[in-house]
Amino acid sequence: MRRVDRGIAAVEGIKSAVAKTGIKKDGKLDLAVLFSDYPCLWCATFTKNNVKAAPVVYDIELLSKNEPLRAIVVNSGNANACTKEGKEAVIRIVEETSKILNIKKDEVAVCSTGIIGERLPYEKIISSLKNLDFSEENCHLAAEAILTTDTKTKEVAYEFEIDGKEVHIGGMAKGAGMISPCMATMLSFIFTDVNVERDLLCKALKEAVDLSFNRISVDGDTSTNDSCFLLSTCKGENSKIKEENEAYDIFLGVLKKVCMELALKIVEDGEGATKVVKIVVDKAKNEEEAQRCARAIADSLLVKTALFGERANWGRIAACVGYSGVTFSKQGFSISVGDKPVFDRGRENKIDVSSYMKNKDIDIVVSLYSGNASYTMWTTDLSYDYVKINSI
Amino acid sequence: MRRVDRGIAAVEGIKSAVAKTGIKKDGKLDLAVLFSDYPCLWCATFTKNNVKAAPVVYDIELLSKNEPLRAIVVNSGNANACTKEGKEAVIRIVEETSKILNIKKDEVAVCSTGIIGERLPYEKIISSLKNLDFSEENCHLAAEAILTTDTKTKEVAYEFEIDGKEVHIGGMAKGAGMISPCMATMLSFIFTDVNVERDLLCKALKEAVDLSFNRISVDGDTSTNDSCFLLSTCKGENSKIKEENEAYDIFLGVLKKVCMELALKIVEDGEGATKVVKIVVDKAKNEEEAQRCARAIADSLLVKTALFGERANWGRIAACVGYSGVTFSKQGFSISVGDKPVFDRGRENKIDVSSYMKNKDIDIVVSLYSGNASYTMWTTDLSYDYVKINSI
Repeated sequence: MRRVDRGIAAVEGIKSAVAKTGIKKDGKLDLAVLFSDYPCLWCATFTKNNVKAAPVVYDIELLSKNEPLRAIVVNSGNANACTKEGKEAVIRIVEETSKILNIKKDEVAVCSTGIIGERLPYEKIISSLKNLDFSEENCHLAAEAILTTDTKTKEVAYEFEIDGKEVHIGGMAKGAGMISPCMATMLSFIFTDVNVERDLLCKALKEAVDLSFNRISVDGDTSTNDSCFLLSTCKGENSKIKEENEAYDIFLGVLKKVCMELALKIVEDGEGATKVVKIVVDKAKNEEEAQRCARAIADSLLVKTALFGERANWGRIAACVGYSGVTFSKQGFSISVGDKPVFDRGRENKIDVSSYMKNKDIDIVVSLYSGNASYTMWTTDLSYDYVKINSI
Repeated sequence: MRRVDRGIAAVEGIKSAVAKTGIKKDGKLDLAVLFSDYPCLWCATFTKNNVKAAPVVYDIELLSKNEPLRAIVVNSGNANACTKEGKEAVIRIVEETSKILNIKKDEVAVCSTGIIGERLPYEKIISSLKNLDFSEENCHLAAEAILTTDTKTKEVAYEFEIDGKEVHIGGMAKGAGMISPCMATMLSFIFTDVNVERDLLCKALKEAVDLSFNRISVDGDTSTNDSCFLLSTCKGENSKIKEENEAYDIFLGVLKKVCMELALKIVEDGEGATKVVKIVVDKAKNEEEAQRCARAIADSLLVKTALFGERANWGRIAACVGYSGVTFSKQGFSISVGDKPVFDRGRENKIDVSSYMKNKDIDIVVSLYSGNASYTMWTTDLSYDYVKINSI
């Protein structure tokens, strides 16, 4: 397995085009169209928020048709959510894209990210669609065009072998704010050429998303728009994967790696984030409790502000364990910060971890001693800049 | 009903003493002892956090003994939570207090608030106990001594009539951080002279707390220490309240008022708060859903930072409604900001509320059109100062 710097263009036949439509008031790139020379098998996971943006509602229906996909139109700067004309905007964009690219309407998906509740000026998108210049190289600009308050593009690609044949997975993502477990303002587009049946493509995506994008938290808010797409051209020369065999495991392994790396890039670039914090809850009664406890810690303002201040203040972590309502041993639970057992079965250890807290990457482990389940999450600290970004 | 400025000393026989024990490193008052000349009927509500501070565990057991109370020893600056010697500290404080005040051990309750996980230097409390000066006037200093990051004391007292006899309720509270519904780092001590049976005293407290302290949120973190005490000397000349009659209703009404005013003082003085935000969710399927929806909005970092920035950004409120998972009409829900219907059954109204957002008090109403239940909460914005207070 070799990392390649070609983003989604690591997959042969995937091209991108970008534009400045004027939706973003600062005049930055705000439109990306991702295009495949070949019809792609595809699947996607979407926000669990009951208030879904118009493009999400559209894409969910499109996915259910089980038809191949050729293009994804993505705008940033406006979420196309909670407005009267949301559906109409999506339909008009799809119609125009299918005409211009000469593909079927059902081969076009649409994604939006940005402010909720303002009308999407889709005329700006439609007029920009007419002058698009598609190329493989443009994938990096496409990764830029989908950003909102992100400060960096997020691209990961690998080439690897199945059956001795070279195959590829390349993805891009945007994140920054409204990031909470279970898909949050996060868009991710992953392409592959691995020859695989659709059911297994979907199964692999679900598993990879569950272990990566669904385990990150910036602010605990779940967005109306998040979507993670996986498309395969199936042009790889491997024998078609039809069961969960060794070839599937290889594919799944690389897909997980791509998703995990993209997810961590989202956390690192979380709004105002200065820390990447890994939270492991282990020895839990069951996975649901491990997860509930990890999320309580990951979303706690008091924990996050303490992390920003580079203070362990593990008492705040202990309070989270308590209010998460999970089961812990009568002898108490333990908290380690960077391998140091600051709190051991209900009793404090006077261990100074202040120099460790200056690291950018912080590890926190909570052991509940009530079972064998565990859960891992990644979160950020909460800084002045988070407040600034979201209040101005 | 007349407001009086005497705090808990509005009730005859209630005296306070304070000290600077040195637990607070800045040398401020950090010990208050509240004392009643008469044995008091009492009840209390405590944190629902499974990690309870040692004094909370002690007081819960004490309450179950159903014996009268004479004194409450409160220290600030240290929570006496999650430490080896927590229980021992409480026992030593109780022993010493009972000796010095010449009362029974079971007549002494203990409360702590402050940092979690650091040993309580209870020797400092014990040596301060020896030189206490009790007076009615000291109640205001006691209200100061229980504060942590609060910027103001919080006292409310009323005198009113039952059966034509003058009776009183006076209370104090501290709040500031770790404030979340269901009792959070909040201590409140309320005294009355109303002559009432214990069962009804407890029932009234539960109802009043549920409508006030349990409906406020500063940061969504539930503390290990919060406690709300209600004590009655029963020295009022009203005929003893033995059933839920008119006299009970008068008593309950004033108690609710005292709790609500103290709760709002906590929100107003929330860490870094610049706004007091009332959130009403109405036309909900049931109260549980109304409450879940209100809490999602009250705890959302994106909503709170937008409020700090004096922007309505009601799309973030819509996103909360969605991820709270509550039922809303197929025609959509509505959001009003200061009586202006910014979002009406799924469609945006272009109403400018930017001048309204400059007010200190902000009203938000969400109507779900799925039933008749409603729930009201109070929350704050999230400012730079919140981050500062909790990271330094």
